[in-house]
Amino acid sequence: MDFRIESDSIGEKKVPKSAYYGINTLRAADNFKITGLKIHEEFIKSIVEIKKAAAITNEGIGLLGEHIKETIVKACDEIIEGKFKDQFITDPIQGGAGTSINMNVNEVVSNRSIELLGGEKGNYNIVNPNDHVNMGQSTNDVIPTAGKITTIKLILRCIKQLKILKKVFKEKAEEFNDIIKMGRTQLQDAVPIRLGQEFNAYSSVIKRDILRLNQVIESLKEVNIGGTAIGTGINTDMRYQIKIIPNLSKITQIQLNQAEDLIDSTQNLDSLVITSSVIRTCAVNLSKIANDLRLMSSGPRTGFGEINLPAKQNGSSIMPGKVNPVIPEVINQIAFNIIGNDVTINMAAEAGQLELNAFEPIMFFNLFQSIETLTNGINTFVENCVQGITANRKRCKGLLENSIGILTALCPYVGYKEAAEIAKRAMNTGESVRKIILREKILDEREVNSILNTVDMTKPRISRKYAVYK
Amino acid sequence: MDFRIESDSIGEKKVPKSAYYGINTLRAADNFKITGLKIHEEFIKSIVEIKKAAAITNEGIGLLGEHIKETIVKACDEIIEGKFKDQFITDPIQGGAGTSINMNVNEVVSNRSIELLGGEKGNYNIVNPNDHVNMGQSTNDVIPTAGKITTIKLILRCIKQLKILKKVFKEKAEEFNDIIKMGRTQLQDAVPIRLGQEFNAYSSVIKRDILRLNQVIESLKEVNIGGTAIGTGINTDMRYQIKIIPNLSKITQIQLNQAEDLIDSTQNLDSLVITSSVIRTCAVNLSKIANDLRLMSSGPRTGFGEINLPAKQNGSSIMPGKVNPVIPEVINQIAFNIIGNDVTINMAAEAGQLELNAFEPIMFFNLFQSIETLTNGINTFVENCVQGITANRKRCKGLLENSIGILTALCPYVGYKEAAEIAKRAMNTGESVRKIILREKILDEREVNSILNTVDMTKPRISRKYAVYK
Amino acid sequence: MDFRIESDSIGEKKVPKSAYYGINTLRAADNFKITGLKIHEEFIKSIVEIKKAAAITNEGIGLLGEHIKETIVKACDEIIEGKFKDQFITDPIQGGAGTSINMNVNEVVSNRSIELLGGEKGNYNIVNPNDHVNMGQSTNDVIPTAGKITTIKLILRCIKQLKILKKVFKEKAEEFNDIIKMGRTQLQDAVPIRLGQEFNAYSSVIKRDILRLNQVIESLKEVNIGGTAIGTGINTDMRYQIKIIPNLSKITQIQLNQAEDLIDSTQNLDSLVITSSVIRTCAVNLSKIANDLRLMSSGPRTGFGEINLPAKQNGSSIMPGKVNPVIPEVINQIAFNIIGNDVTINMAAEAGQLELNAFEPIMFFNLFQSIETLTNGINTFVENCVQGITANRKRCKGLLENSIGILTALCPYVGYKEAAEIAKRAMNTGESVRKIILREKILDEREVNSILNTVDMTKPRISRKYAVYK
Amino acid sequence: MDFRIESDSIGEKKVPKSAYYGINTLRAADNFKITGLKIHEEFIKSIVEIKKAAAITNEGIGLLGEHIKETIVKACDEIIEGKFKDQFITDPIQGGAGTSINMNVNEVVSNRSIELLGGEKGNYNIVNPNDHVNMGQSTNDVIPTAGKITTIKLILRCIKQLKILKKVFKEKAEEFNDIIKMGRTQLQDAVPIRLGQEFNAYSSVIKRDILRLNQVIESLKEVNIGGTAIGTGINTDMRYQIKIIPNLSKITQIQLNQAEDLIDSTQNLDSLVITSSVIRTCAVNLSKIANDLRLMSSGPRTGFGEINLPAKQNGSSIMPGKVNPVIPEVINQIAFNIIGNDVTINMAAEAGQLELNAFEPIMFFNLFQSIETLTNGINTFVENCVQGITANRKRCKGLLENSIGILTALCPYVGYKEAAEIAKRAMNTGESVRKIILREKILDEREVNSILNTVDMTKPRISRKYAVYK
Repeated sequence: MDFRIESDSIGEKKVPKSAYYGINTLRAADNFKITGLKIHEEFIKSIVEIKKAAAITNEGIGLLGEHIKETIVKACDEIIEGKFKDQFITDPIQGGAGTSINMNVNEVVSNRSIELLGGEKGNYNIVNPNDHVNMGQSTNDVIPTAGKITTIKLILRCIKQLKILKKVFKEKAEEFNDIIKMGRTQLQDAVPIRLGQEFNAYSSVIKRDILRLNQVIESLKEVNIGGTAIGTGINTDMRYQIKIIPNLSKITQIQLNQAEDLIDSTQNLDSLVITSSVIRTCAVNLSKIANDLRLMSSGPRTGFGEINLPAKQNGSSIMPGKVNPVIPEVINQIAFNIIGNDVTINMAAEAGQLELNAFEPIMFFNLFQSIETLTNGINTFVENCVQGITANRKRCKGLLENSIGILTALCPYVGYKEAAEIAKRAMNTGESVRKIILREKILDEREVNSILNTVDMTKPRISRKYAVYK
Repeated sequence: MDFRIESDSIGEKKVPKSAYYGINTLRAADNFKITGLKIHEEFIKSIVEIKKAAAITNEGIGLLGEHIKETIVKACDEIIEGKFKDQFITDPIQGGAGTSINMNVNEVVSNRSIELLGGEKGNYNIVNPNDHVNMGQSTNDVIPTAGKITTIKLILRCIKQLKILKKVFKEKAEEFNDIIKMGRTQLQDAVPIRLGQEFNAYSSVIKRDILRLNQVIESLKEVNIGGTAIGTGINTDMRYQIKIIPNLSKITQIQLNQAEDLIDSTQNLDSLVITSSVIRTCAVNLSKIANDLRLMSSGPRTGFGEINLPAKQNGSSIMPGKVNPVIPEVINQIAFNIIGNDVTINMAAEAGQLELNAFEPIMFFNLFQSIETLTNGINTFVENCVQGITANRKRCKGLLENSIGILTALCPYVGYKEAAEIAKRAMNTGESVRKIILREKILDEREVNSILNTVDMTKPRISRKYAVYK
Repeated sequence: MDFRIESDSIGEKKVPKSAYYGINTLRAADNFKITGLKIHEEFIKSIVEIKKAAAITNEGIGLLGEHIKETIVKACDEIIEGKFKDQFITDPIQGGAGTSINMNVNEVVSNRSIELLGGEKGNYNIVNPNDHVNMGQSTNDVIPTAGKITTIKLILRCIKQLKILKKVFKEKAEEFNDIIKMGRTQLQDAVPIRLGQEFNAYSSVIKRDILRLNQVIESLKEVNIGGTAIGTGINTDMRYQIKIIPNLSKITQIQLNQAEDLIDSTQNLDSLVITSSVIRTCAVNLSKIANDLRLMSSGPRTGFGEINLPAKQNGSSIMPGKVNPVIPEVINQIAFNIIGNDVTINMAAEAGQLELNAFEPIMFFNLFQSIETLTNGINTFVENCVQGITANRKRCKGLLENSIGILTALCPYVGYKEAAEIAKRAMNTGESVRKIILREKILDEREVNSILNTVDMTKPRISRKYAVYK
Repeated sequence: MDFRIESDSIGEKKVPKSAYYGINTLRAADNFKITGLKIHEEFIKSIVEIKKAAAITNEGIGLLGEHIKETIVKACDEIIEGKFKDQFITDPIQGGAGTSINMNVNEVVSNRSIELLGGEKGNYNIVNPNDHVNMGQSTNDVIPTAGKITTIKLILRCIKQLKILKKVFKEKAEEFNDIIKMGRTQLQDAVPIRLGQEFNAYSSVIKRDILRLNQVIESLKEVNIGGTAIGTGINTDMRYQIKIIPNLSKITQIQLNQAEDLIDSTQNLDSLVITSSVIRTCAVNLSKIANDLRLMSSGPRTGFGEINLPAKQNGSSIMPGKVNPVIPEVINQIAFNIIGNDVTINMAAEAGQLELNAFEPIMFFNLFQSIETLTNGINTFVENCVQGITANRKRCKGLLENSIGILTALCPYVGYKEAAEIAKRAMNTGESVRKIILREKILDEREVNSILNTVDMTKPRISRKYAVYK
């Protein structure tokens, strides 16, 4: 391979001649061989969008020549379109608050600009990574800002999937609205519910998740670009401060705001902590739903058997005909992973010191993974599971009729204690509750039909007055 | 001890004659000897407030006799005033979704009512714990509702403390506004900052915490009272549904709303998850501040020594004269504890099944502890630490003048690379940056005075144009 | 109240005349009003045991007068016997690495000694808390050592309970050994298992927990007493180093070792981290078992219904006759709490700095709670749940006979694919697997009886050769 | 692209003609598009090693023809050598307990075998993925066994790195053995320590980590292969049970044992939980060391400045000459990530139900990442940081001489209280402790020289008797 020599304060280093990255990137790649993974593409794009916005802003206030600005903008646009992907070689888990990836971007933009201007890569007199591409910026405002922009983009995709899921649950709620079944608390027979009500509850909780995600986007729009190294805005021009946000908003299509207190905003990443919390809350909710679906579809012969999940793959390498709830199971696992990621994000946030939190890389690595796996999980949950759920109407009804739980409805008429006695007898004899009540003349048939109407039990009604309550 | 005999479906049991609790409570106390602790007093009060509201509501719609209602209300008021504290004997970690504590309250209210009516404790024909005190209710709507009310009350106290802390930080920010010092990123000398800016940043992040806590209170106001066992509202009257919330709001002085989807609201506790997240985020922020204060006050002779924390107790049993940052350290520990509690709350929320989450007791136990220890921690943080912080003005200045970090301000004039070279020379020779620049005639004295003015470095300024940027 | 005046480097303070604690304790009590709880009694005792061992050691090498030593020993013995409990008033969550509780003990021992010698409390010329009671010690070796001793004591109690639980599971395994039922993987019907095998598996996993706890005790026996402030042993005598461990071992009845590297042992608390991990692993195992019991006992009419848990209390305030699995539920909650505590302990361990980890108080607070709630939970688990479990033999058999899972045993004879086809037909028609095989003449009756013998399916057997495998 | 048609119980599906995987793999790839990542190569290899061992075993007991066995072994060997990597296309986060990856392997081995035998891929009559390749196995014994084998392999690599790190710390301990400096507790000046003692402590704690990792390997050697679906060993031959472990041990070069209770071993993954705990404990220890290095190297002008970390890359895109502790920072981040992963692993372990824990995929995904990032982190920590650390001898000495902490050594001679008074005066006047003692004639010069000898303070010594202790 051909090489060029680049140098920095530490010394010289051979850089592959064809490489758009430079010595800073290479040192970082040597220092951080941790995961073998690449930095999220959207994150790279967001950083490049900042470079573009800065170039435009700096030119606008007379600090950057128009020609250089136009070249930088062109180089940025190429990267945003998806070019040079293989030039971003620093590991997502990296020391140094993201300086490595910021310099990786600076160098690629710089070398591509040099190339566009007819120079030779590495000749930083033409377009300098620090002085031109990074002008008015610091890793410490670029990386948090780019990270927040990326997070917003990823959350928007997630919300889109959640809305579909909510809609599908709502549709299932209507489809199953008249299927009456036994509700269970603590896995024990409780009182009747309609299967549709259960699916409606799933849509209700997701509605809140969507709401919270939308709220959290608002808090993420507050960025610290312009704060540079520690939030004091050192080496920025006052006119830059005014223009950078509108320019960046235009490029990213996200209406950003500059943080009121840039010093606070540079060192505190509570907006990421709360974002992770909201994602995690959504994951917890989905995992609970996944558990419910696995319970209700347990069987086929020895479980609850109230619903059927669509068969998506053979469930076993040894047990023929076995179909497992693999999609809900993947939801559970995504949730467990997100809950773990959230702990990581918290520890990293807590570890910030003085003017900076240097642990942004691990925070973004985990946060992006959380949002994306959740989004992907919801996608397969909708398409390969929820949409295809069917109900075992007969089974639901059969289980309910056999149950003792309906006795609750009798309490207002005979009191808790007597109802409990009837329950005991039913349990011991195996007889149906209805039969006992009629035989023992606790109520007449008309009353039983009215009071023990299981559909009526699924909603409040007008109570009759009874002696017991006086 | 004298006993009375009480019975339930399981059998008979001796209850101390003087006890206001009954057989259900006693069984629970036997079953759950876990922490040896008591349930939070405010939680008991909130449950009792629900009992009171229910009695008023049930009487209002004709289901409960006026006399019984008035007696129940009286008994409730006594408990709210702080009486009968020793009668609530179930462990905060209890199985069964809180049925034990709900029955504990039902029994105490019932027996006190019986007593007020001249009856003998245990004669539940007079006032029955299930039929009268628990009328129209279920553990499954009482406990989450009471828990949320309690959470709101505790958060309000926490916000009060946070506001004081914010104010004190703001005052310190003003007091220290003209103290210039070296800012540090990654514990390495960065660029100048004013000590007041640092303290202002602390007030800024707390401002966001207060905002988030206020938001979360809104989501907690949505309660599921009226949903009874599984959210279908079984055994409630439609008129009860309309009156219970206004009555409860009046008693608690909190403007509550009934959840739109009571089934969802009975089984999903995401509002507690997000509440814990917000508390935790605040704890993370405070822990970072505590770490900063410990760093800046490190010394007295071999550390940063920029500020002094007030001496609050001897720091060592062996080292004379040692004073330690014990108050920030307790903040750190409270934060670690809250982060752990939050994991517990998440696991419990995820473990809900079908129509109910039976793990509310552990959620509330941890959530109440988180909020209260945070509140108490902030209180001592304000009074015994932040208020008394003083600055070592000379030390701050001395460190700064000696530093190389101010070279950043030179970049726009000589470029990053040449500035880095000067830094290297200064490091190697120990000479001051200023001296090198003047001797090497990089800038003249007037320029140096202007460009290397450290106070100016703490805010954006108008840049001069320089060749380097073209 | 009457007061005496005490003073320290910070100033003077009024101490209640009757108090055995002194100014240091009082300052700490003022500084840390966090949980309102008391420090664990066993922890106090272990600290006092160290004071006693140190006094004996110091006297033995001629540094402490015999009379003072004997008085200190007497005072220590009184506390160990349970006296003066109300004199330990510092909060378990306290800043300062435990200096507050160490000084609390020093002061109580000192003042009680003064009193025994006829002096007036507060006259520290007679017996001084620092110079006499704390002689040769520092908070930084006393607290970790006492904490480890306490942990060992608490773990020993836990192991005792675990052994009982293991034994009870083993007995149940024998009792249920011939009850054949359907095994389930992923909540779907799998292949037959005996109920006894399931309970035996529970005893097997607990056996490993006991093993791990015993191993962890060994690592806890390595203590840093003698290291004083930072592990260099400053202010200790070389002869003290030789005698303190044997003396302390004799008093505590635990065979302790002094850490090879006292500096390491003062600053690193990995033995607590791993102890918490082992406790947590046990909690995870028990929570899984609790979940299984809840699943198998789900019903009574609409769940799995394979086993019955003993009814320990009414399950509901509204639903008569409902009995819930409250004991397993409390196990789940204890486990969730322990998992959270473990996160706290990790964060605290990670936060150690240089020569000390100042966050021991929160670590011990959580660790003690974890071990004790686990111990208490196991106790109620054994007595109020596992011991009383009964099996529904008929139900187990009925579910199994109806099931398709037994088809797995057919694979070696007809191949996976054909077996899967039969499964499909059985599912669609509702016919029994056996019937289909016979009707379709896949096997003759003798073969079916042998191959589909469900009891034989619960263990490996000698395979017949079949064409399919060639 | 050309396709072949494959079918299963669910239906038909087009598979790329060139693909070695089949319909099961393809369905799984469609169902689980979660992370976009590949399953760990070592994990694939371990599964293939099991396939090979099973084929050899089954042929040995006469169940598999010799020709097929030899073909399967050849196919397996090719994969183990690194071929067909692109054929393993299922996502590491997958539902179904690993059935997808097990079938992926079964299909690739099967189709490669078919090909080797001259057949056409997809013609499973020649070599069947379930009946031949998976013979005597189930996902439920293959995946945990393969996962444990992989874990052992990865831990062995980690131990190798840890041993190097321990050695390097030991070397630094010797190099720095005579550098005396101020020890710090709670970031406050404590008593003298030698820099070498600090580095020795780092090697001591790592020694324990190595010990624990070696212990955990032993527990991982207990595997459940032979248990098949639920641990009952259904569809295995008794002779297979005897041979499979020796055969697999030979192939993997790891001395495995079959679990005593295969049912327990199939459903309980506590060995993974404890493995993760041990890895995490190591990460916590390393993170603490990284924090210490960052503290001690803080500066260059305004921090502790006691040591220098080697400069590995420019620290800032804006601040020239800034060099940051990027390698310790990456260690911190790896640790935070591992602590989060550990929470995930715990949740997954707790979520096992009845005869199986279906959440193994997420457990292995996280566990492998934890071990590998730790190993990689240690590698860069050694090479790019610890090895190159240098000490600032003068600075260490200067800080110490200026300090008050040395007063501790005076306590045995003047008592704690008087020493504290001297400390106070030194603090207030800025005078040196030595000067005050001499001027005030507390000790004479000879005594001061002996008692305040800082090197002597770093180890226990023979105490002189003094009145204070009587």
